[in-house]
Amino acid sequence: MRFCSACGAPVELKRPAGDTLDRHVCSACGEIHYRNPKVVVGAVCTWQDRVLLCRRAIEPRAGFWAVPAGYLEFGESTEEGARRETFEEACARIEISGLLGVYNVVRIGQVQLFYRARLLSPQIAAGVETLELDLFEWPAIPWDELAFPSVRWVLQRALELRDHAGPYPPALGP
Amino acid sequence: MRFCSACGAPVELKRPAGDTLDRHVCSACGEIHYRNPKVVVGAVCTWQDRVLLCRRAIEPRAGFWAVPAGYLEFGESTEEGARRETFEEACARIEISGLLGVYNVVRIGQVQLFYRARLLSPQIAAGVETLELDLFEWPAIPWDELAFPSVRWVLQRALELRDHAGPYPPALGP
Repeated sequence: MRFCSACGAPVELKRPAGDTLDRHVCSACGEIHYRNPKVVVGAVCTWQDRVLLCRRAIEPRAGFWAVPAGYLEFGESTEEGARRETFEEACARIEISGLLGVYNVVRIGQVQLFYRARLLSPQIAAGVETLELDLFEWPAIPWDELAFPSVRWVLQRALELRDHAGPYPPALGP
Repeated sequence: MRFCSACGAPVELKRPAGDTLDRHVCSACGEIHYRNPKVVVGAVCTWQDRVLLCRRAIEPRAGFWAVPAGYLEFGESTEEGARRETFEEACARIEISGLLGVYNVVRIGQVQLFYRARLLSPQIAAGVETLELDLFEWPAIPWDELAFPSVRWVLQRALELRDHAGPYPPALGP
C-alpha cells in the first residue's frame, strides 16, 4: 500500500486520532486505508463416505491435495462461496449440512470457514485450477501430501464426525 | 477504487484472463485489486445470566444497543478480536466458550462471527464508542432498540441456548 486508491496521492503510516494502531492515511484526501483479513471458504464434500480431494494445479502448493476452497467474493455468502469453489475446482454440485471448522491463520490474515457437504452426484471433473481429483476412502487420504495445515485439520474434524448425526460445534483453531 | 495502491496509476474495470468477474486492474503495473468482504467479530457476554449490552456512541446506529463487536484487525484471531472489542467498548475481560452464530450480510460485504462468553467480573465501564452500558436480565433486553439485525439474531440464539450446556452448532444465517 503506497498510494491512495481514492485519489492517487501517496499514503503515509500514521495513527489517526482516537485509534490504537498506525494506518495507511492519504497525505492529500485523508482517507484511512485499513488492512483487513480475508475470508477463505471451503467444503469437505463426500459421496457415500468417500471424500473429494483435488490436486492443485496452481501455486501456492501446486501438486498437493486439498478440499475445494478459495477466497470469498464480495457479494456472495460464505455458503455460496464454498459451493462456487467446489464447482470451479471439481465441476461438482453440493448440499451443505453444517460448519466443520473456523480456522484463523493470523500470520497471513486469513479466516477460513469449512463446511460439511454432500455431493449431489458422483460426477466430478477437474477445473482449470485442478490437476486431477478423486473420491478417497478415508484410509486412502494422502495425509502426507496435503496442501495446507487447515486441510489436515478439517479432514481430521470431518473424520471425527464421520458417524455423528447430531448437532456438533465447529472446530475452532488452530 | 480509482487508483492503484501499488503504483498510483488509474485502475480500470476489466476481466483478467481466466477470471469470471470484472476486477479493478491497474492500467500501468497490471496489479489486480480484489474487493474483499470484511470480517466482523463480537461476543454475547454474560455475568450470572445477565447480558452485556452497550449503547452506541458512534454511527451507524448511534443511540441503539448492541453487543460488543467490530471489524477484525489484521494480525489477530477472531477470538482475540472479540475480546479486544469487548475491552474497547465495555472495559471488560471475557472468557470465550463457543461460537454462537455466523451471519452473512452480503449486501455490505460482511461475515460476522459472534462468540458466547463469560465476563470475568461484573466491573464494566463505557469505552469511548459507548454512551452507556448495562447487564440486562433477558426479559429486559431492549429488543426494539437494537442497533442491527444480527444483534437480534445472536441474542435470540444465545437465549435459545441459555440453559444448554452441551455442544451446539452456531446459527448460520440469516
